[in-house]
Amino acid sequence: MDILDSIQSDMEKLEQELISQLQSRVPVALEIGVHVMNSGGKRIRPQLTIISARMGGYHGPKALVLSVAIESIHTATLLHDDVVDQAETRRGRPSANTMWSNEMCVLGGDYILAKAFSALTSLNDIRILRIVSETTERLSEGELFQMMNIGNMNIREDEYLQIIIDKTAVLMEAACRGGAILGGLDRRKEDALAGFGFNLGIAFQMTDDVIDYVSDKAVMGKDPGKDLEEGKLTLPLICALKRADTAERARIEGLVRDGKLGDSDLAWVRDFLRRRGGIDETLERSREYLRTAVDHLAVFPDSEEKHALMRLAERVLHRTY
Amino acid sequence: MDILDSIQSDMEKLEQELISQLQSRVPVALEIGVHVMNSGGKRIRPQLTIISARMGGYHGPKALVLSVAIESIHTATLLHDDVVDQAETRRGRPSANTMWSNEMCVLGGDYILAKAFSALTSLNDIRILRIVSETTERLSEGELFQMMNIGNMNIREDEYLQIIIDKTAVLMEAACRGGAILGGLDRRKEDALAGFGFNLGIAFQMTDDVIDYVSDKAVMGKDPGKDLEEGKLTLPLICALKRADTAERARIEGLVRDGKLGDSDLAWVRDFLRRRGGIDETLERSREYLRTAVDHLAVFPDSEEKHALMRLAERVLHRTY
Repeated sequence: MDILDSIQSDMEKLEQELISQLQSRVPVALEIGVHVMNSGGKRIRPQLTIISARMGGYHGPKALVLSVAIESIHTATLLHDDVVDQAETRRGRPSANTMWSNEMCVLGGDYILAKAFSALTSLNDIRILRIVSETTERLSEGELFQMMNIGNMNIREDEYLQIIIDKTAVLMEAACRGGAILGGLDRRKEDALAGFGFNLGIAFQMTDDVIDYVSDKAVMGKDPGKDLEEGKLTLPLICALKRADTAERARIEGLVRDGKLGDSDLAWVRDFLRRRGGIDETLERSREYLRTAVDHLAVFPDSEEKHALMRLAERVLHRTY
Repeated sequence: MDILDSIQSDMEKLEQELISQLQSRVPVALEIGVHVMNSGGKRIRPQLTIISARMGGYHGPKALVLSVAIESIHTATLLHDDVVDQAETRRGRPSANTMWSNEMCVLGGDYILAKAFSALTSLNDIRILRIVSETTERLSEGELFQMMNIGNMNIREDEYLQIIIDKTAVLMEAACRGGAILGGLDRRKEDALAGFGFNLGIAFQMTDDVIDYVSDKAVMGKDPGKDLEEGKLTLPLICALKRADTAERARIEGLVRDGKLGDSDLAWVRDFLRRRGGIDETLERSREYLRTAVDHLAVFPDSEEKHALMRLAERVLHRTY
């Protein structure tokens, strides 16, 4: 039996609440929200919140409220990303901006975001509100910084790291820290859970960036090589380029400029990334962050919840293969 | 001496703080923010907050924090509106989405919005946070509902009213109510100020919708007739259409369909609106809402602040001429 089964009923309530909270006088606000909420998210952030709260013995309804808000913020950013990326699909389904205008998706995202903050006020906890709103700032800063670096062949590893911290790690950190606060954990344990979420988030995004190159369309639901086509140089490419010869670098530069990867280009890029160690180095880095994440859990005694978090970390690792 | 002079130093601090609060590791986040903050807003919402707080005797720094947050939310929605409307100018200056991509403007708006909520947490007042976040929901619902009614020749007055309440009135209501809460006013006086802001907001938007037809480009900084070109049927047109003959209705329908107003079309539309009483009826309705707004102030004894609010109401009326 999967240890995560213990939060199964919470996760079912979450699915209901993600939709029902979006009820609106304006039907299209709900319709856009339902579409994007049902786009096959893995709900890793809500799992982090619910388990973190349980680490402090809290099993009450506030964890659901916080989970819904955090997943909603994540979903709103996906909706705005799809507008930004002019995506046609998200996880194999038509993306919202193919079904509604970009304009409606912008407003739909705003609606979901505002709903999340409204819901959070019911927790009566200013600190949680501050953590979540500051995290939301950083999400948009991360996206903006990423956009400023579109097509930047010389993006540094520390700049890449800053982008994925802002885009992904801080929200997973907030999911854990918020749960820890609901659980009434002391500051040391709260920081430990936050550190777990932060490092998990970095590892998660690194493996995501590997998957973008190595996975099948059938598994991933989108064409591989999208990041390169969009001019986003992620860690696999940054690492491989360190060891690239002049011809290889020139070919990558051309592909980034053209923004279109044919089948033979993709095959060549994949081979290049493997040959120059871009995949292996990224996976090794991801594993290091996962180790750091799990190390943060050392302050907790053994428990079903602690094992659930370790299982989540393992899953992040294994999704790369 | 203008009675509003008494809040002049607060308004200067507001201008500084609107910019300085947007400091970011990511320069473009600040740049977009500065551009849109400096787009010539009238700062009516901050004035409402600061004066409302003073109605309760509060002159401290929290009114500035709340003013900045509310003006920021207003500004973020303008930024997203410009993306939505694909506007080329805002108040006579190039709109942000001509200087940065639509995508960056979406993210810039998200950043400003999140900053506003972060700043509000420093007030340590969950009720104000709830009011502002629920208001932000309604802003996006109003925009979405307006968008659903693009080109709708049969939009009813109550639907128009719902749009302008959500788009404009609730944020002015929140500006007043928030100030009243900071001022420690009792619930009756708080509701009175909220009612003032709400009705002022309706009147303000109605006169705005008149100005869209009657004003000069030189004064308004944008082409008159924009609302019609964008397929938004506002109250002047809704009122005139009630008394239109078949030929007039058909011509309006054609113009809404084409989405382009030539000079002779605009001249005809203006004449049509005057002949069929669309302008007069809208201004009369606006005056009624202003009277209701001012009536709400009856619970307050005479004071400099009360007169300042009445002056604000007068200005809303006079900007139509």
